[in-house]
Amino acid sequence: MKIAILPGDGIGTEIVAEAVKVLKVLDLKFETESALVGGAAYEAHGHPLPESTLKLAKQADAILFGAVGDWKYDKLDRPLRPEQAILGLRKNLGLFANFRPAICYEQLTHASSLKPELVAGLDILIIRELTGDIYFGQPRGRRVATDGHFPGSEEAFDTMRYSRPEIERIAHVAFQAARKRGKRVTSVDKANVLETFQLWKDVVTEVGLQYPDVALDHMYVDNAAMQLVKAPKKFDVVVTGNMFGDILSDAAAMLTGSIGMLPSASLNDKNQGLYEPSHGSAPDIAGKGVANPLATILSAAMMLRFSLNQPEAAARIEKAVDTVLSQGLRTPDIYSEGTTKVGTVEMGDAVVKAL
Amino acid sequence: MKIAILPGDGIGTEIVAEAVKVLKVLDLKFETESALVGGAAYEAHGHPLPESTLKLAKQADAILFGAVGDWKYDKLDRPLRPEQAILGLRKNLGLFANFRPAICYEQLTHASSLKPELVAGLDILIIRELTGDIYFGQPRGRRVATDGHFPGSEEAFDTMRYSRPEIERIAHVAFQAARKRGKRVTSVDKANVLETFQLWKDVVTEVGLQYPDVALDHMYVDNAAMQLVKAPKKFDVVVTGNMFGDILSDAAAMLTGSIGMLPSASLNDKNQGLYEPSHGSAPDIAGKGVANPLATILSAAMMLRFSLNQPEAAARIEKAVDTVLSQGLRTPDIYSEGTTKVGTVEMGDAVVKAL
Ligand SMILES: CC(C)[C@H](C(=O)O)[C@@H](O)C(=O)O
Ligand SMILES: CC(C)[C@H](C(=O)O)[C@@H](O)C(=O)O
Repeated sequence: MKIAILPGDGIGTEIVAEAVKVLKVLDLKFETESALVGGAAYEAHGHPLPESTLKLAKQADAILFGAVGDWKYDKLDRPLRPEQAILGLRKNLGLFANFRPAICYEQLTHASSLKPELVAGLDILIIRELTGDIYFGQPRGRRVATDGHFPGSEEAFDTMRYSRPEIERIAHVAFQAARKRGKRVTSVDKANVLETFQLWKDVVTEVGLQYPDVALDHMYVDNAAMQLVKAPKKFDVVVTGNMFGDILSDAAAMLTGSIGMLPSASLNDKNQGLYEPSHGSAPDIAGKGVANPLATILSAAMMLRFSLNQPEAAARIEKAVDTVLSQGLRTPDIYSEGTTKVGTVEMGDAVVKAL
Repeated sequence: MKIAILPGDGIGTEIVAEAVKVLKVLDLKFETESALVGGAAYEAHGHPLPESTLKLAKQADAILFGAVGDWKYDKLDRPLRPEQAILGLRKNLGLFANFRPAICYEQLTHASSLKPELVAGLDILIIRELTGDIYFGQPRGRRVATDGHFPGSEEAFDTMRYSRPEIERIAHVAFQAARKRGKRVTSVDKANVLETFQLWKDVVTEVGLQYPDVALDHMYVDNAAMQLVKAPKKFDVVVTGNMFGDILSDAAAMLTGSIGMLPSASLNDKNQGLYEPSHGSAPDIAGKGVANPLATILSAAMMLRFSLNQPEAAARIEKAVDTVLSQGLRTPDIYSEGTTKVGTVEMGDAVVKAL
């Protein structure tokens, strides 16, 4: 088994180091190999996703990813910006199924901006399609408008699209995930306006017939954004497209109040996966030793479960994280009065000890 | 001056009746004419936006709109569904500038799902472009995929697009609105992924140079969804495209906790406008006399200010609404212990009395 370690930029290196430390003490049989990605790779090789990094990622059974991006790269041409690395990995490895749990840890309920009773015990799984939609649809670009409100003027355009098999496979992922949980799927669309999401709704409905034990409902994306704010606990599994999933999964993560705790997984049809924290590279706190490594450590646990077939080891890590929270250890992002403030390395050490 | 009254479906008729009652007691010089729209128009004329209704809307200086839609029309072909009426009005009248205030009334702070300190005094203005983007872009439809992940399979597609002048005019609206308020504009885009929103960002930046007194910042849509949940008071004016605006304005409205209070305006370049509550047709409570008419009454106030040049009358209505809230009158959607529960008509009567 081989794990590609891609720490990336900003706090990426610090948090990935802690996750690797945790993995190492488990004494499992796997090889690791590190490579540069994002801005760090651009600085060294002139490209955010160099051939060598992509090759390593393709060969590996799983990728442990930190985060990419920094304001200093904002002026680069789009194809050279750090976030192209993550889009390139998704596309080249066919990582179509993105799992984004939004969980509110009992010990951290107060950290949410929502009233505690609305989030206590929250446990939603957002499943976002990750290789289709307007992210990758062609054609796209700039041209002179030939119709619309201002023919003759410059316009920019993108193509939203989904094919039937793309929708089918992500729907199956959602229904199967729901079977192992609350047995409810909410499919989020905008079928009242978009052709793409009328097909989405039709196909998800069809696939749903194969899962009579799972309840399916449909919600427009604007309503889903409202219901997430109003009553998030009503959701179990949410499945949606790439663009809507980008927005809703971040909103859901933030409303737990502790995005620094939330892992994510992006899988292809061979269960090869990329595992990364839900938060970003946070250049403002990079190098200060204060970043929360728990989302990355929990991403490593997801990796053990989904791609490396080590569910017991995954559960051990998750239990250790629960233990350190109960011990009152907190990085600054989740700190509150009466708890003990610790740094990135101390938090990683505490998880190791709890193992 | 002529006002077209389009009550629509569900609670639409009840809430619009109260707003009309309020307008009538102001004794201003205007004519009103009513017409069917949405499901009601479909039942009577076989189309959600009959020619006669569209003609009336075009002739009027302003449209007071209730709400459209009911689950019973879900099975109709898309062009016949109630929501096509609202899309048709936007398109045919060129109502490109949608104003969606998200205000948290002092008397209702506790109704928010957010902690009171995060929403007390909240006053954001979301300006959503309303006639472009993926809502109206051509081509769109179904076809056999010729490339992508599954060539040969059925796919559906839509076109996202914005032209430079479309972006310029909505940007001017946003900067001018910000001048009358907190002098800050946040432009929401997804320039890291979409060509359309790279142009959006470029053009908004250019237009911003003409408003050196207004501070401009840019935010990705996923981050905007997070910041709305985390710290909504950091925003002043938010300007964004049709699709992102649909999602963010609903999320923002819901986090005030009292979407039943929030008006909206959709204007064209002649200041002709459509005014409607931010909430929907709520078929579940239609006909029960419990719907909150205040969002519609406040929409009528916006109409007086923006399209009918009666700012004093608008302010009188707004003050009257504040008075009834301070009197402790509440429809069920905003009711809490210690206040007085009233129905739709009683609430309308109370506003009339407060005038
Ligand atoms: C960095 C960006 C391209 C990316 C996305 O939009 O998918 C990010 O927001 C995410 O959700 O992983
Ligand atoms: C009904 C629907 C077409 C409409 C939209 O998406 O614009 C609605 O959600 C709105 O925001 O007015």
